[in-house]
Amino acid sequence: MTGYDVQVNGLSINLATVRQQYGFAAAVDACLAQGITAIAPWRDQVEAIGLEEAARIVRLNGLRVTGYCRGGMFPATDRAGLDAALDDNKRAIDEAAALGADCLVLVVGGLPGASKDIIAARGMVADGIAAILPHARAARMPLAIEPLHPMFAADRSCVNTLEQALDLCDVLGDGVGVAIDVYHTWWDPKLRPQIARAGRGKRILAHHICDWLAITRDLLLDRGMMGDGVVDLKRFRADIERAGYHGPQEVEIFSALNWWKRPGEEVIATCIERFRTVC
Amino acid sequence: MTGYDVQVNGLSINLATVRQQYGFAAAVDACLAQGITAIAPWRDQVEAIGLEEAARIVRLNGLRVTGYCRGGMFPATDRAGLDAALDDNKRAIDEAAALGADCLVLVVGGLPGASKDIIAARGMVADGIAAILPHARAARMPLAIEPLHPMFAADRSCVNTLEQALDLCDVLGDGVGVAIDVYHTWWDPKLRPQIARAGRGKRILAHHICDWLAITRDLLLDRGMMGDGVVDLKRFRADIERAGYHGPQEVEIFSALNWWKRPGEEVIATCIERFRTVC
Repeated sequence: MTGYDVQVNGLSINLATVRQQYGFAAAVDACLAQGITAIAPWRDQVEAIGLEEAARIVRLNGLRVTGYCRGGMFPATDRAGLDAALDDNKRAIDEAAALGADCLVLVVGGLPGASKDIIAARGMVADGIAAILPHARAARMPLAIEPLHPMFAADRSCVNTLEQALDLCDVLGDGVGVAIDVYHTWWDPKLRPQIARAGRGKRILAHHICDWLAITRDLLLDRGMMGDGVVDLKRFRADIERAGYHGPQEVEIFSALNWWKRPGEEVIATCIERFRTVC
Repeated sequence: MTGYDVQVNGLSINLATVRQQYGFAAAVDACLAQGITAIAPWRDQVEAIGLEEAARIVRLNGLRVTGYCRGGMFPATDRAGLDAALDDNKRAIDEAAALGADCLVLVVGGLPGASKDIIAARGMVADGIAAILPHARAARMPLAIEPLHPMFAADRSCVNTLEQALDLCDVLGDGVGVAIDVYHTWWDPKLRPQIARAGRGKRILAHHICDWLAITRDLLLDRGMMGDGVVDLKRFRADIERAGYHGPQEVEIFSALNWWKRPGEEVIATCIERFRTVC
């Protein structure tokens, strides 16, 4: 353990938040320097340093890995594409297990190729998760389906509401749950009852935070820092807690227009300050 | 009636589609020149030429007005703001009636001021529509609640799914219905059953078309021409028809990045061609 004075409990940094500033090891150092002992890395970040070295750093520092990003991307235009996706997801499960992650986050994929059939894509997603689920169960690695904002339905995820994700969990059974990200779900008229439903079913595996900026300039890379947008984060968290989930809040901010341009130390310090004041 | 040869049945042009090219009268001329006899104008376009003159042009040419854009924007930070919104909506109802429109489209509004309370905003919307409904009923002007894509929840509309809009209709009773725009609703996992529900309740007042571009560069002003995106428009229309709505398909394309830069004649010709081939 290294020399931080005060540990920041209940806060995890998804390393995408500082992906332009740091590689895996430097990001961990920067988190530890400010007392953060929970992270969520991405596969490319782990691959760059090597899985064994990443796992060693996690163990050595007693880090909690609140999620591993990411599996998914099931819809494909042919059998070979689907098989490749399934194989890749099994590798991601093994990597998540090696890192001791709480869950593997699934961004399930959108429309394959030139398809306009979102109902078929959703069927491929259900079949794909069912196909990797035995592998995940054997590895004791929970799969966290992350419903993505409807603006990503075409290109990233055809699972777009918490209700839809929970319906999928009901079909799939044990070993799957949801990652609930405020960015993707804050607008949903059925949010509160569906969070409660997720809690009843013990399906909440992760809680991601950031903020929705009232003026959003880019669909993918203009997420806001907590407090800079319109989401009532305290109320959201209260609903999550009431549903029985008391795990860390994981900050995940893709911000090519702002935070990725700032020093990583400043970004992490701001995450901590906002976590303490507005979350 | 002027000199077009073939009338294009079943297609309406929302005049926002050519708002950079034409004022009201020139837009009507451009539509008639290609056989289109249904339009949907915006309040600023009508105001620029004057309500009486606009109504005269509509009557003289036997135009169908498939909707008048728009009322709504109810949430306010204080009583004065709310009262102003209600007064403005009543004027919009009267204007729609003067034009003989099929309905007044309501874009209900987002979060007022610095509010982060979307549930309160939704309450203001329900109260606001209830407050203007007697005026609308007296004018025999149906109010079409248009659920807007969730990416507009903060700034334009806190009604974001068809299910939510229909729940609101159930509470409000007669004189309200929905405008179903493919752009705002195509992603919805509950779309088909909710279209069917809307049909059973005789709630479908308008059907707007355009397309969702797989690569969308701007949240507001990058809508696609039918056929250029990912929406299965024939299937969508089949669901609308099956639900008992056989009115025109109304093209509404906000496209600062493409179609607003092209000659209006080309835009209208393309709408007709795509309407005939992919809708």
